[in-house]
Amino acid sequence: MGNKSENQLYIGIDGGGSKSRARLYSKANGVLGAGLSGPANAFQDLDGAIRSIKDATHKALEAADLPRSELKNIITGIGIAGANLPNTRTALQNWRHPYQDLHVTTDLHIACLGAHHGGNGAVIIAGTGSAGISYVDGTLYVIGGHGFPFGDKCSGAWMGLQALKHTLLALDGFEPQSALVSNMLEKLQLTDAVAIVEKMSGATSTKFAQFAPCVFEAAKAQDDVAVRIIREGAAYLSQMGRRLLDNHPPRLSFIGGLAPYIAPWLDKDVAEALAAPYDPPEGGAIIFAERELKPEPIMVAGSS
Amino acid sequence: MGNKSENQLYIGIDGGGSKSRARLYSKANGVLGAGLSGPANAFQDLDGAIRSIKDATHKALEAADLPRSELKNIITGIGIAGANLPNTRTALQNWRHPYQDLHVTTDLHIACLGAHHGGNGAVIIAGTGSAGISYVDGTLYVIGGHGFPFGDKCSGAWMGLQALKHTLLALDGFEPQSALVSNMLEKLQLTDAVAIVEKMSGATSTKFAQFAPCVFEAAKAQDDVAVRIIREGAAYLSQMGRRLLDNHPPRLSFIGGLAPYIAPWLDKDVAEALAAPYDPPEGGAIIFAERELKPEPIMVAGSS
Repeated sequence: MGNKSENQLYIGIDGGGSKSRARLYSKANGVLGAGLSGPANAFQDLDGAIRSIKDATHKALEAADLPRSELKNIITGIGIAGANLPNTRTALQNWRHPYQDLHVTTDLHIACLGAHHGGNGAVIIAGTGSAGISYVDGTLYVIGGHGFPFGDKCSGAWMGLQALKHTLLALDGFEPQSALVSNMLEKLQLTDAVAIVEKMSGATSTKFAQFAPCVFEAAKAQDDVAVRIIREGAAYLSQMGRRLLDNHPPRLSFIGGLAPYIAPWLDKDVAEALAAPYDPPEGGAIIFAERELKPEPIMVAGSS
Repeated sequence: MGNKSENQLYIGIDGGGSKSRARLYSKANGVLGAGLSGPANAFQDLDGAIRSIKDATHKALEAADLPRSELKNIITGIGIAGANLPNTRTALQNWRHPYQDLHVTTDLHIACLGAHHGGNGAVIIAGTGSAGISYVDGTLYVIGGHGFPFGDKCSGAWMGLQALKHTLLALDGFEPQSALVSNMLEKLQLTDAVAIVEKMSGATSTKFAQFAPCVFEAAKAQDDVAVRIIREGAAYLSQMGRRLLDNHPPRLSFIGGLAPYIAPWLDKDVAEALAAPYDPPEGGAIIFAERELKPEPIMVAGSS
């Protein structure tokens, strides 16, 4: 980065399971524009992910009144779920991108870089997916993740799956009707199990995550099942927070679309340790591109 | 059926999530041959399902020393998961099959027809998927089902998903190591969470069901988590059994690949009500074809 001009343009992209965000930046002028687009899950749908990345990029350029021909002069950093999986990483690296240069790493890595200005720190993420990450003295630890439907406990997709399972059991008469079931049927705009199954079969994590608000709304109305789902998820994230704090990060942030709703349910010791993130993940993607960092080798906690 | 000759050939096919079975039959000579092939899940993979149906059919013909040119003289009945879903049923009906005639219904319907010789009765099914069905005085009730990953509680796929979730939590250090985790890692031939995720992402219910034996093996070794998974599943099937018995079927059978392993865990009242099935589902498919039955309109219990 030392030999780049102050006017060198960077784009940082956060490719998320439900939304993608791009930020255009130069050292001389700071943030020049931002763009929001659809989901980018490189593992489930690589072509769709690349479309969302392009779309967010173009919107950030438009916001800065720059033509697309500028892309060839822009160094781009992308953080995206699945970039740690060998097949997905290779596929992304083989993309014939339009940028001056492209640096790809995981969504978790840029989240941590952004939250702590590239310094030491840890983050708990709860959005479409969930995971924990700490970066302390050059070592990156990741806890959890693993994706839908077997990992990402306390993510939006996990909550949506719990809620849908419960809704089908209630429609079958195995569980009582409740506020959660009503919320789900209203969101689905369906009342028949067979139609629900046809609508949701093969659905992506993004589609399941759309039910997460039904769970929080029902919990507000003291719905037992909704409260149990959130408590189980929050207990997992609290445990994850304590595990991250064991690595002695100077800061711990809680980010992602569900963070504001889950935060009140976290154990007190973890809630009190939280510090607001400095920059969003797309800001972390710019730090990643600026420093010409390599994707960190991921140390999975627990199996280390 | 009255005007068909005693030598009219029938094939009955049970298209299952893990295996498909065909049976060749005539009234004059009884069962002439049988064939076994791979999975047939019409919803997840229609082309694969048709391949498995053809394969099982050809094997049954070979077993009876009949050439494939005979197919045009054979009336075929197929029971297959997903045949109740409008899109899947239409796709199956549009298949340009080689038979004299083709009758399609659900796997549940033929299971019930087979278990009770086409008479009144009920069945609990636990194989790759799970469901309950009763057929009493012309009314067919179905309970449960709904498929992977949100339905089919106590199915092989459900058990495999519970076991995989637990294994990943254990690898991350959130749960203790145990016999179940060892069994899973041995079956996966992997020890690393990232490699497991890459192997299992997007996996079908059939692939998850392959882990069910790991759970039963671990339960034998008194593994707490395995015992809890089986108890939760068996409690659901016991509840389902009682619901089916509420319809006063003269017989209740328990069928599917997992039935022998789950039966000892069922509640005593349900276990004591069980009667052995007369014929396997592929026999029920022959009854379905012979009687030129229509697929029964499915009454989903609970929403009735």
